[in-house]
Amino acid sequence: MSKTDNASKSASEQTLLDQAKEVKDAARHLALASTAQKNEALELCASLLIDRTDAVLAANQKDIERARESGTSTTVIDRLMLNKARIDSMAKGLRDVAALADPVGEIAEGWVRPNGLQIRKVRVPLGVIGIIYENRPNVTSDAAALCLKSGNSAFLRGSSGAIDSNLEISSILSEGLKKAGLPSAAVTLVRDTSRESATEFMKLRGYIDCLIPRGGPSLVAAIVENATVPYVIDGDGNCHIYVDETADLDMAVEIIANAKVQRPSVCNAVETVLLHETVIGDLLPRLEERMPTVEFRADQASRRFLERSVLATEEDYAREFLDLILAVKTVTGLDEAINHIRRFGSGHSEAIVTNDYSASKRFVAEVDAAAVLVNASTRFVDGGEVGFGAEIGISTQKLHARGPMGLRELTTEKFVIEGNGQVRA
Amino acid sequence: MSKTDNASKSASEQTLLDQAKEVKDAARHLALASTAQKNEALELCASLLIDRTDAVLAANQKDIERARESGTSTTVIDRLMLNKARIDSMAKGLRDVAALADPVGEIAEGWVRPNGLQIRKVRVPLGVIGIIYENRPNVTSDAAALCLKSGNSAFLRGSSGAIDSNLEISSILSEGLKKAGLPSAAVTLVRDTSRESATEFMKLRGYIDCLIPRGGPSLVAAIVENATVPYVIDGDGNCHIYVDETADLDMAVEIIANAKVQRPSVCNAVETVLLHETVIGDLLPRLEERMPTVEFRADQASRRFLERSVLATEEDYAREFLDLILAVKTVTGLDEAINHIRRFGSGHSEAIVTNDYSASKRFVAEVDAAAVLVNASTRFVDGGEVGFGAEIGISTQKLHARGPMGLRELTTEKFVIEGNGQVRA
Repeated sequence: MSKTDNASKSASEQTLLDQAKEVKDAARHLALASTAQKNEALELCASLLIDRTDAVLAANQKDIERARESGTSTTVIDRLMLNKARIDSMAKGLRDVAALADPVGEIAEGWVRPNGLQIRKVRVPLGVIGIIYENRPNVTSDAAALCLKSGNSAFLRGSSGAIDSNLEISSILSEGLKKAGLPSAAVTLVRDTSRESATEFMKLRGYIDCLIPRGGPSLVAAIVENATVPYVIDGDGNCHIYVDETADLDMAVEIIANAKVQRPSVCNAVETVLLHETVIGDLLPRLEERMPTVEFRADQASRRFLERSVLATEEDYAREFLDLILAVKTVTGLDEAINHIRRFGSGHSEAIVTNDYSASKRFVAEVDAAAVLVNASTRFVDGGEVGFGAEIGISTQKLHARGPMGLRELTTEKFVIEGNGQVRA
Repeated sequence: MSKTDNASKSASEQTLLDQAKEVKDAARHLALASTAQKNEALELCASLLIDRTDAVLAANQKDIERARESGTSTTVIDRLMLNKARIDSMAKGLRDVAALADPVGEIAEGWVRPNGLQIRKVRVPLGVIGIIYENRPNVTSDAAALCLKSGNSAFLRGSSGAIDSNLEISSILSEGLKKAGLPSAAVTLVRDTSRESATEFMKLRGYIDCLIPRGGPSLVAAIVENATVPYVIDGDGNCHIYVDETADLDMAVEIIANAKVQRPSVCNAVETVLLHETVIGDLLPRLEERMPTVEFRADQASRRFLERSVLATEEDYAREFLDLILAVKTVTGLDEAINHIRRFGSGHSEAIVTNDYSASKRFVAEVDAAAVLVNASTRFVDGGEVGFGAEIGISTQKLHARGPMGLRELTTEKFVIEGNGQVRA
C-alpha cells in the first residue's frame, strides 16, 4: 500500500466540515508561498501525474466500468474517459499555469494622501476556492492549478461518477504540494458526493471564500437558492450576432460560420443571428451553403431565402442550442436587434458585424453583456483567446468578475495604509 | 396639490414588482447619460432640496411625532430628526458628488492580441443598486447621489419610521432627475416597509444588480440567508491595534486615543489593543491618562498597570463595543497578536504600531482584513479619508469590493472586443 493510499484511508473518515477546516488552514500557508515555491509545486505535480499514469488509468477504469454498468451514454463516458494523451495534456496544463505571471502581490493602485499616508491596493489570494463540477476528471487538475498559482486552496467537489479518478488525481496533487513544502490539504477533494453534501458544501460560509460552479442551469439555480458562501456564476451563453445593413457580407459569413460550427457545444458559440432586412436576400443563401450541416430555424421573412429551414418559435430564440442549430431573425434595424438581445440574451457575448461607426458605438454602449464584439467571432470570449493564458470560467454576473476569468479574478485586494503616526482630525 | 403629490398618489398603488420594473427600465436610460447630464441632475436635486426645506421638515415632523408616540429613544429620534442645517448638508452632499470624477467609461485595461483584436475592459454602471437602510433620512439623498453619479438607478428601501421624510426627499430627487431630462424612476423609494417586503426585496433577482445593506448584524444575517440578488456586505468592525515592542509609545498613545475616542460609534474605531508584554508598564498608565472617559477591560497582566479596569472576558474580545470601552490584551509577540486577530477580527481594519521593518511586513502580509495599517489610526479606513471623495459603505467581503467603496465600486466592467473580421482557428 503506497503512502498515498494510506493518506486516503485516514482521510476517508473525515466529515465535510473536517475537510473544510483543513483546506482553510492550508490556504493561510499557501497565501504566503513565494511564486517560485508554487511553480515548483506545479512542476512536481506534473511530473508525478506522468509517473503515475498507470494508477490514474486504473482508477479511471473503475469509474468507466461503473458508468457502463449503469447504462451511461457514450457521450458522457467519453467525457469521463482518460487515456495517456489526456493525462499528458493535464500535466502540460499544470506546467502552462506555472509559466503564467503570478497575480499575488501586484499593486493594483497606489497613491499618497495629503497627510502623507501611503495607500496601496495589493492583490492577495481569496483563500479557499470551492469548485463544483461534473464528470470531467481533467477539471480536478486544471482547476487546482489555477487556484494554487493564485495562492488559493482548491476545495473540489466533483461528481460521484468520477470519484475514483478524482481521488487518484487529487492525491497525486497533494503529494506534489507536500514535496514542494506546501500543505497537502491545499488541494482537497470532497469525498462525500451525495446530493446532501452538495447543499452542505454551498453553505460552508466562513470556509469557502468563493464558489465557482461548473455545471448546467439546475446547478446554478441550486446555488442561487441555497448558497450562503460567495459565488461567481459561470452561466449560459445565448449569444447573438447582428448583421447590420452596412456589413461586409463575406466577413459576416465567416464570422457566423466560425461562431456556429467551430465548436457548437460551448457557451460562446452563436445561437441566433439577427439580420438587417436589407441583407437577408444576399446573406442567407451564402450562410446555408457555407454551413451545410447546420439546421436553420428562421422567421417567415428569412425563410424565403433558405432552401431548408423550419419556422422559428419564441422558444428557439430563448434556447442555448449548444448544437448545430441556428435561429434566424430578420430585424428592421439596430433598435430591434438591441431589443431582441435585451429580451433573450443571457449577458454572455454579443456581436455586431457592421461598417457603420455610429452603429458600432451604439451597439457597444447599449448591449448589456459581459462581452460585446465588433466584427469578430463570439468564440474569442475565452480566457486563452483574450490573453489570460488559462481560464477558470466565464462569469455572466456583474459583481467581482465579468467575462473570462483568469488568475487575477481568483484574487481580492487588500488596502495597505502606511503612515508615521497620522491620526484623524 | 403639487405635481409631486400627484406623482406620489398614483405611485402608491404600485406593487414592489411594478416598482422594480420601473427602476430597472430607468437604469437602462441612466447608463447612457452623459456626465454633464448627471451632474446637472445632481445640482437640480440640491437646489430643489433647499427650496423645499419646509416640506421636508413637515414630513420629518410626522415621522418624529409617530416615533415619540411609540416611545422611541432619544438617540433614535436624534438620528431621524432633520433640521435646516442637516438639509443644507444633504444638498451639499449632492453637489460634492457632482464634483467627483465619473467612473463610467473609464478604461480599466486595454491591450491588442497577436491577431489584431483590440480588447478593452470598460467600466459601466451595474444597473440597479438596492439599498436597505435604517432610520436616517439623509441616506436617501446620500446613497441616491452616488448611485446616480455612477449611472445606476437607486432602489431605496428605508425604514417605516422614516417613511414620510424618505417619500418627500425621494420625490424631490425624482423631480430633479426629470428636470434634467432623466427618468424620475431612477430614484425609487419602496413604499411598502413591511418585514415581508424586505425579504421580497432581497429576492428581486433580475431587477437588483447589487444590494448594499446599511444595518446591523441581523440585517446582514437575513441577507446571507435569504437574498438571491447579488450583494456586498458592509459588515462589523472588530478592529485591533497591536503595539509592538519597538513602537514609539508617544505615537502609540495618540493613534489608540484617536482610534478609540474620536468617534467611538463607527465601524473603524478600535475595540481591542494588543500590547507587547514589554510595553505595558510604560504604555498603560499613559493610555489611562490620555483617555479618562474610556472604560478598560483588560487581562490580568495588564490590569497591574491600570488604576481603573475590569477583567476582560472572551466575549469582550469578540464584541464590537461601538462605545467608550477598550479591551486590552497582553501578548508575547507578533505571532500571538496575529493569532488573536485571526480568531476575533471581523476582517475590517487592523493596525500595528512598530518601528520594526520585518514586523511591519509580516503584519501586512499575514493579517487577513480589508485594510491593514502601519503606524496610523484605523479611523482612516473610510472612503473620504482614502481619497474617494465619498463612500457608499465599507465592504468586509472579499468578492467585488473590499474596504471603502466609492463610485468605482458601483460599476462593473464590460469586455469590448473590436476586430476586422477575425475568426478563431
